Amino acid sequence: MLSISQYRERFLDHLENKIITKEPVNLYAPMEYILQLGGKRLRPILVLLSAEVFNTNYEKALDAALAIEVFHNFSLIHDDIMDAAPLRRGKETVHEKWDLNTGILSGDAMLINAYQLFENYDGNIFKELARLFTRTAIRVCEGQQYDMDFESREIVEIDEYLKMIEYKTAVLVGASLQMGAIIAETSEENKNAVYEFGRLLGIAFQLQDDYLDAFGDPETFGKQTGGDIIKNKKTFLYITALQKSDIAEARQLEDLYSINPVDSTGKIEAVKNIFKESGAALLAREEIQKYTNKAFEALNRMDLQEQKK
Amino acid sequence: MLSISQYRERFLDHLENKIITKEPVNLYAPMEYILQLGGKRLRPILVLLSAEVFNTNYEKALDAALAIEVFHNFSLIHDDIMDAAPLRRGKETVHEKWDLNTGILSGDAMLINAYQLFENYDGNIFKELARLFTRTAIRVCEGQQYDMDFESREIVEIDEYLKMIEYKTAVLVGASLQMGAIIAETSEENKNAVYEFGRLLGIAFQLQDDYLDAFGDPETFGKQTGGDIIKNKKTFLYITALQKSDIAEARQLEDLYSINPVDSTGKIEAVKNIFKESGAALLAREEIQKYTNKAFEALNRMDLQEQKK
Repeated sequence: MLSISQYRERFLDHLENKIITKEPVNLYAPMEYILQLGGKRLRPILVLLSAEVFNTNYEKALDAALAIEVFHNFSLIHDDIMDAAPLRRGKETVHEKWDLNTGILSGDAMLINAYQLFENYDGNIFKELARLFTRTAIRVCEGQQYDMDFESREIVEIDEYLKMIEYKTAVLVGASLQMGAIIAETSEENKNAVYEFGRLLGIAFQLQDDYLDAFGDPETFGKQTGGDIIKNKKTFLYITALQKSDIAEARQLEDLYSINPVDSTGKIEAVKNIFKESGAALLAREEIQKYTNKAFEALNRMDLQEQKK
Repeated sequence: MLSISQYRERFLDHLENKIITKEPVNLYAPMEYILQLGGKRLRPILVLLSAEVFNTNYEKALDAALAIEVFHNFSLIHDDIMDAAPLRRGKETVHEKWDLNTGILSGDAMLINAYQLFENYDGNIFKELARLFTRTAIRVCEGQQYDMDFESREIVEIDEYLKMIEYKTAVLVGASLQMGAIIAETSEENKNAVYEFGRLLGIAFQLQDDYLDAFGDPETFGKQTGGDIIKNKKTFLYITALQKSDIAEARQLEDLYSINPVDSTGKIEAVKNIFKESGAALLAREEIQKYTNKAFEALNRMDLQEQKK
């Protein structure tokens, strides 16, 4: 097996060969633009890794890996429109660089293009990949809808929040790993276990991301902390803090989440304080650990050499 | 075989059974809304008809017919956003009734949902349907992009215009008919011929629609005439009239296409006059006939009982 950075390189070579701007240019240039913006390429690497773990050469998995990355970037283009985000990875978003219509239409074409990439697989594998992809893509849309719905809702339950992050981000991690397993034609048990591993780890990662957004070290976290607090985002920390606080503290938290000060330093500190005092910060760390443990239980169910696990 | 209106009824029954608003409601209610807005249901009826023509019960084709209708309505939602259209079939468009984000996301979910409907077919038929659908859907996006590109271009060639309407509307007519043929598992020759028949007839229909938009009887055409002229749309009539006019007349036409008067009656009459005087109106009728003839030549290549043709 290769190293992660080697898989990333092989994937990027494949991407460059396959994603070429053709006619009509205004439809395909945004596709090439966003796919070249960078990113960790986590999901496609997981597809390749999974294929190799189940004893199949990663090269067979390159098109599925690309499909996952194209889909992920389709969702970024449309999400950036919905969030009115000006920047993505420090560069202009597609709807900013071009316009709204270009963002919508090139995103649509990318979603279709993802399906097209599965056509390079044989009948049964094609059907399995396409079914998994469809089920996953629908979940991602549902997750995005829940996320938007929560913005205008007063109360969000913890279970609803967990379902939202599962749909919006975790199922795609599970699907990435399962695609490698499908291409490797491993057992149904392995396919299910590796999906569960990815899904649970995806939830743990998202909870971790939420946690670090408040309490991370800006240097290692890679972006400025406090972003979710500035945007009044109802994360695990916020929902748990509301539940665990006394009435006075809960009202204070709700008040803090109803303002948008120009200088948000004081607001961020006050909110983080409530997150800690209420025990929400600790509970978040415990929840991350719980999902990580469950993920590794799923991993242990797999029929694999110990080394590959 | 049933009558067209009977196929429509059976299709609408199927649609009502299958399209049910579920959670999250804000994602699925727009889907149910636009699918209930009406319309002729031409494309899904073609899927059913084609299956029966090739000796297979239409019931087997209901899911593919629904997929085509769901896809068509996805494209209407996103196109209406791109055109900033307030009304669709006399009712509020999705982005007007809800908002932009709902229009984008529910459209995305519908595109994915269309793929999901093909899963009810066996391995090989599934792959054939999904491949045809993907190829067609990509073309539809490319056609929409060309259409938008042409708005800001000075000169559009007739070939470019014909390619645009082929991609934007005609390929979906061809694909609808071919889906019935795929489900009926008829010969490759029949599958190709019925696709060609639909594609050519689709081009003829769109040219006819353009022609009637200028010269139709408002009573039988079903909508107010002159819409394309008001919007300065570079149709077959406009492009041909520009080519066939002398310099003075061509400049007059370009001038007319650069204004947006509040009362457009005079502009419409002047433009229609140039369409007639230049011979463009006659050439359009000839082009419609040419494509119709070619369509029926494709029909004659099919291995079918004469009655079914």
